[in-house]
Amino acid sequence: MPYINIKITDEGVTREQKKALIEGTTRLMVEVLNKDPATTCVVIDEVNTDNWGIGFDQVSKLRQLAKR
Amino acid sequence: MPYINIKITDEGVTREQKKALIEGTTRLMVEVLNKDPATTCVVIDEVNTDNWGIGFDQVSKLRQLAKR
Amino acid sequence: MPYINIKITDEGVTREQKKALIEGTTRLMVEVLNKDPATTCVVIDEVNTDNWGIGFDQVSKLRQLAKR
Amino acid sequence: MPYINIKITDEGVTREQKKALIEGTTRLMVEVLNKDPATTCVVIDEVNTDNWGIGFDQVSKLRQLAKR
Amino acid sequence: MPYINIKITDEGVTREQKKALIEGTTRLMVEVLNKDPATTCVVIDEVNTDNWGIGFDQVSKLRQLAKR
Amino acid sequence: MPYINIKITDEGVTREQKKALIEGTTRLMVEVLNKDPATTCVVIDEVNTDNWGIGFDQVSKLRQLAKR
Repeated sequence: MPYINIKITDEGVTREQKKALIEGTTRLMVEVLNKDPATTCVVIDEVNTDNWGIGFDQVSKLRQLAKR
Repeated sequence: MPYINIKITDEGVTREQKKALIEGTTRLMVEVLNKDPATTCVVIDEVNTDNWGIGFDQVSKLRQLAKR
Repeated sequence: MPYINIKITDEGVTREQKKALIEGTTRLMVEVLNKDPATTCVVIDEVNTDNWGIGFDQVSKLRQLAKR
Repeated sequence: MPYINIKITDEGVTREQKKALIEGTTRLMVEVLNKDPATTCVVIDEVNTDNWGIGFDQVSKLRQLAKR
Repeated sequence: MPYINIKITDEGVTREQKKALIEGTTRLMVEVLNKDPATTCVVIDEVNTDNWGIGFDQVSKLRQLAKR
Repeated sequence: MPYINIKITDEGVTREQKKALIEGTTRLMVEVLNKDPATTCVVIDEVNTDNWGIGFDQVSKLRQLAKR
């Protein structure tokens, strides 16, 4: 029954990486809380780097600065 | 004032179906809780089947298996 | 698989009203989208009226004004 | 450490407007709550007007009516 | 119509501080995006410091360490 | 920068279990996506069993039935 929502930036996350996130978080619910995996939902939201801010800055700007 | 967030997979949900979800949930708020529909917000998030996991699996994989 | 999150103010919502919200939203998912109710989750968050704002005001203040 | 999620309709919000929302909400956390901006995250979700409902109606329909 | 959800730790946030957060975020929606404040909702979730993690640690532990 | 929100029922989750969920999900972000743990936030919401529905039923009712 647990519901896990993962929010990350949309920077080329592969299908295999998403699979690993889903498996890993579901396993945590089973191992730590003894939850039933059959009703454990994981939803991954990929967010544009213009739409994510940290420390006053858009991530898109931070990525540009990091490339210099 | 209620806020309802509906998360579903993005598998061809039509505009009419979205309309029905919005009307139905708003009506529930009015009938069950006597809320004002004018400030009742419903937001539908459609999620890629690669990004939704249940029972350790991506929904995209479950859909492939179901087609066999 | 749908996940529905309902946010409402914590103003004496009864267990029966919560039951009606859960049944009603689940039924919508089944009737409108043909979803499986067995994996349809509904989560109700009750929010303190000091913590909910609309039109610049806290709901707690709006409730006080309405009582005058 | 605060996390702020802004949900708005996807009606041509510019990169500069998103920047202003991120800066403004982060500043609020610093000024009102003395939070550390370095770990303050702001995530903006842009929602299709078919997927947002208010007062029983889809925003897309309200926009069409407003144009008449 | 915007919906803003603010998640912060439950460390003695006052009613006046919540009021300031609600007013400030609503004003941003009006000034930056020309939104109608009458349908702008702000919801503040206060989270127990045991339930908030950053950098592998619970905030409750970080607060204990900071007191030393 | 990732933000992970875990929603579970409030059925006696211990501080150590919450710690394990925070550590485990943060480790996943580091190992699978190479994210910086210093800005990875995990927020756990514990939901009353009256407020969580699955398969048309409140979890509180399911728990009562399971005890018979």
